[in-house]
Amino acid sequence: MDICLFKELSRKYKVIFFDSYGVLRNYKGIYSGVREMLQSLEQDGIDYYILTNDASRSPQLLADSFLSRGVPEITKDKIISSGMIAMDYIANKVNAGTVVYLGTEQSAHYVASIGLNTISISDLDLDNIDDVSSLVFLDDEGFDWNKDLSKTVNLLRKKSVPVIVANLDATYPVNKEDVSIAIGGIAQLVEKMVKKTFMRFGKPDSQMFNFAYNYILSKNTVTKREILMVGDTLKTDIIGGNKFGIDTCLVLSGNVQARKVELNIAASGIIPDFICESVMT
Amino acid sequence: MDICLFKELSRKYKVIFFDSYGVLRNYKGIYSGVREMLQSLEQDGIDYYILTNDASRSPQLLADSFLSRGVPEITKDKIISSGMIAMDYIANKVNAGTVVYLGTEQSAHYVASIGLNTISISDLDLDNIDDVSSLVFLDDEGFDWNKDLSKTVNLLRKKSVPVIVANLDATYPVNKEDVSIAIGGIAQLVEKMVKKTFMRFGKPDSQMFNFAYNYILSKNTVTKREILMVGDTLKTDIIGGNKFGIDTCLVLSGNVQARKVELNIAASGIIPDFICESVMT
Amino acid sequence: MDICLFKELSRKYKVIFFDSYGVLRNYKGIYSGVREMLQSLEQDGIDYYILTNDASRSPQLLADSFLSRGVPEITKDKIISSGMIAMDYIANKVNAGTVVYLGTEQSAHYVASIGLNTISISDLDLDNIDDVSSLVFLDDEGFDWNKDLSKTVNLLRKKSVPVIVANLDATYPVNKEDVSIAIGGIAQLVEKMVKKTFMRFGKPDSQMFNFAYNYILSKNTVTKREILMVGDTLKTDIIGGNKFGIDTCLVLSGNVQARKVELNIAASGIIPDFICESVMT
Amino acid sequence: MDICLFKELSRKYKVIFFDSYGVLRNYKGIYSGVREMLQSLEQDGIDYYILTNDASRSPQLLADSFLSRGVPEITKDKIISSGMIAMDYIANKVNAGTVVYLGTEQSAHYVASIGLNTISISDLDLDNIDDVSSLVFLDDEGFDWNKDLSKTVNLLRKKSVPVIVANLDATYPVNKEDVSIAIGGIAQLVEKMVKKTFMRFGKPDSQMFNFAYNYILSKNTVTKREILMVGDTLKTDIIGGNKFGIDTCLVLSGNVQARKVELNIAASGIIPDFICESVMT
Repeated sequence: MDICLFKELSRKYKVIFFDSYGVLRNYKGIYSGVREMLQSLEQDGIDYYILTNDASRSPQLLADSFLSRGVPEITKDKIISSGMIAMDYIANKVNAGTVVYLGTEQSAHYVASIGLNTISISDLDLDNIDDVSSLVFLDDEGFDWNKDLSKTVNLLRKKSVPVIVANLDATYPVNKEDVSIAIGGIAQLVEKMVKKTFMRFGKPDSQMFNFAYNYILSKNTVTKREILMVGDTLKTDIIGGNKFGIDTCLVLSGNVQARKVELNIAASGIIPDFICESVMT
Repeated sequence: MDICLFKELSRKYKVIFFDSYGVLRNYKGIYSGVREMLQSLEQDGIDYYILTNDASRSPQLLADSFLSRGVPEITKDKIISSGMIAMDYIANKVNAGTVVYLGTEQSAHYVASIGLNTISISDLDLDNIDDVSSLVFLDDEGFDWNKDLSKTVNLLRKKSVPVIVANLDATYPVNKEDVSIAIGGIAQLVEKMVKKTFMRFGKPDSQMFNFAYNYILSKNTVTKREILMVGDTLKTDIIGGNKFGIDTCLVLSGNVQARKVELNIAASGIIPDFICESVMT
Repeated sequence: MDICLFKELSRKYKVIFFDSYGVLRNYKGIYSGVREMLQSLEQDGIDYYILTNDASRSPQLLADSFLSRGVPEITKDKIISSGMIAMDYIANKVNAGTVVYLGTEQSAHYVASIGLNTISISDLDLDNIDDVSSLVFLDDEGFDWNKDLSKTVNLLRKKSVPVIVANLDATYPVNKEDVSIAIGGIAQLVEKMVKKTFMRFGKPDSQMFNFAYNYILSKNTVTKREILMVGDTLKTDIIGGNKFGIDTCLVLSGNVQARKVELNIAASGIIPDFICESVMT
Repeated sequence: MDICLFKELSRKYKVIFFDSYGVLRNYKGIYSGVREMLQSLEQDGIDYYILTNDASRSPQLLADSFLSRGVPEITKDKIISSGMIAMDYIANKVNAGTVVYLGTEQSAHYVASIGLNTISISDLDLDNIDDVSSLVFLDDEGFDWNKDLSKTVNLLRKKSVPVIVANLDATYPVNKEDVSIAIGGIAQLVEKMVKKTFMRFGKPDSQMFNFAYNYILSKNTVTKREILMVGDTLKTDIIGGNKFGIDTCLVLSGNVQARKVELNIAASGIIPDFICESVMT
């Protein structure tokens, strides 16, 4: 498959969906040239959104982190996170009782903002769970894994409540070599132990893409053929975009290395419509 | 959880989504009273649709089978099948080359109707696969498992093409006691052997529900709160409906027996909003 | 399947293998009558051994815990633990370098006793791993899960070394209702993340039974037909004993409740040769 | 890891275990030089055995196939097959009733030779299964997959009997490029559908190695340190030999290509003690 230039490719679309990590940034910060690329899109009248599997922070806080790194273009309304869909679910279908969360207080503020009581798994009393209406995996920090993971297992053995996972990644990179176990990996462990079905929100699930599509439809008229999904991960960004029916572009600035791209595509059977070195080409 | 009457429950909604097998019919035929129930909904101004994980026949043929069994109310436009979404994907994202299929000639007519060349895995020459653009699992009949399953594995080892599975069931009932292995089970076997990611369309995937939602939105204005999903299977109908954000009703006329309903809900962690004996109550 | 009396059944064998937890004891202590049952076996000239999936303590410490609870009959030489097989492996096949462990200092004493350097994952410096020759999962205590599980993942990303898991249980009971995540569950999480093959020692693996068989053969002459495996868990004790070719007896004093025994056997397809209420009958 | 010469390496051992396919032969026949290598071992007083995951033929028939291809050295008593262990299990633990098999008549002769009634799944009447005492997966030929796999599923839904799988391979090569689905792959499909635990015999399970070890101990005195396992497959031959506690040698004449050997070892975490180009070096 040929490598094409992102600048040329992007001009064929009305809307671009960008994955964040590995596409616009990595553990060191925003990639050089991202701001200019976004400004160029704006000049060409191309709209863009960030589709990110992140439930640890609200869209406002995610936007703040771009702002503080010198990219004010990515405002709150440009961000579509898996956390937003999870909150949508909680607001519509849970809508009562106390939401138990695994994560930081900051991540829980987001749940609290929809008007529900929240309690950290750390603070939960297992003898007093009548009011518990759901369990949410938000962030890998903010609780004691040694104690609170067994506590989570026991909560789910005592009471059947909907369980929401809004970050599907098992690990995330912390530097060039090392990773950290993400809340998605923790959720897998707990799910396997309790043998119950958790609800996962985020790429590659089509609900994430559909949420994004409806979000932009409320602003202007776009068909699926006019949208391009740009990502660095075959098994979330690319398969998800493909299945939703939009064009997909794999960039080689993150998970997939240039010398392994053909191998990875053949091994996974996940085939992007286009490949670019990066979004800055 | 209390058992409620479907007649009373249904009146609270503007649209009902029915699963077919285990809700409206079983291996012996349409349940007695289904036609009267549908007529009653129509008199009350409640719209309804059949959401079925079936890709072996077109909506027209599915409707014909209801007609021939004495339920003319379920016309082609009342049916939303996983096959429709798969065809939508093929029409939009494949759109060229030859589609290889596992299934009967009848199931392939549906693919051919969107204007693509089709060839049965039985007739495929593995030395002549340049034109192959995708592979579709449609039906468990119409090919020789002994020969053609290995042939399918070898096709996918030779060439990376999108693989579409539009029936997720592993087995289907053929009488009170016995089951038959379904094409979804066959697809699992092949996927595990080639270690590639197949694209699955159908419940519980939200794409199925979203397709249905958009389909009815094109006819009248409905919010998610005004839709009820009725099904007999926790891990397709109920979890799918829950996650999509609509109300769900489990009926006890199919997969889940009345005496095991509490146990099954607790074991799976999948919690319907309502439980009814059947749609005829 | 009929329930038989253990006293009568046991007389048909020369050697009895007992699982410990759920057979001789539970979270509250040793079952009443166990000592008398063991003395009765001794009077009848029947030899017995404890086969336990425990790698957190040496056989001596395991025996001490029986002694302190009033059962001096179960001495060190009566105990065959999965830890012994793991140590056997480490002594024979690793035999050099530093063994990194997840567990308490006490659990590591056992490894140190075979003459190898050991270091806790907590104390390991990831920039200094040249001497690391293997990794062992010993106990769920003694390290900080929040930090050290990611550290374990990163160690295995940096260096390929044999990984030994000597406790296969995912959880263990801490009281009538609650469980704690066991080191076997932690190992599953890490294995899934690094996608490497770990070596597991312990029931139901036949290596455990073979180790036990060779152990008793060194003392007296017994055929497989003269040995009975007694356990409370179908998927470790019973399937393991069956596959090894010895008779198996399920007791209903632990994991499997009397009212569910037929259901559990049918659902798992694991069929004990005999069923007894408990070893005290 | 350095590549060493097999001729030199083999001299350090008293007994060599050879995997067959990919080590001594491939789909085209016996590798050139194998006979001379075996004769050289014999001259040096080194004993050798073939450890093969094959249950479709008796050791005599396996030996005949070596004889007919010009290697008379590999006689019946040199062959240790997973089928032998399965038959051992059936003879000891089943020992009554009718054994239902999936495979050819030839494969069933082997079961019949231990004195049990056998019936092909094709000929079984599902209404007459009172006498069925076990189910064995022997060979991928000899039955109609379209009909008989569903029949197998239904048999196991109706009756709980021990299920024996004596060939763990999911596929086997039929030429340089293509594979065929093996009976091990078929067994995986059925096991997943009935959700019961099947008993698998063969590498990498230590029972296979232990059976082989006891087999040679009956002839002469050997310690584990004096045995070398030679194989082309990391996840059966190498991990199995390692875990059993014997030295292992990976040869590059089969599954693992020379240019990928470091990659495959790092990815799997399965580390052979030695690597040789082939057994003819």
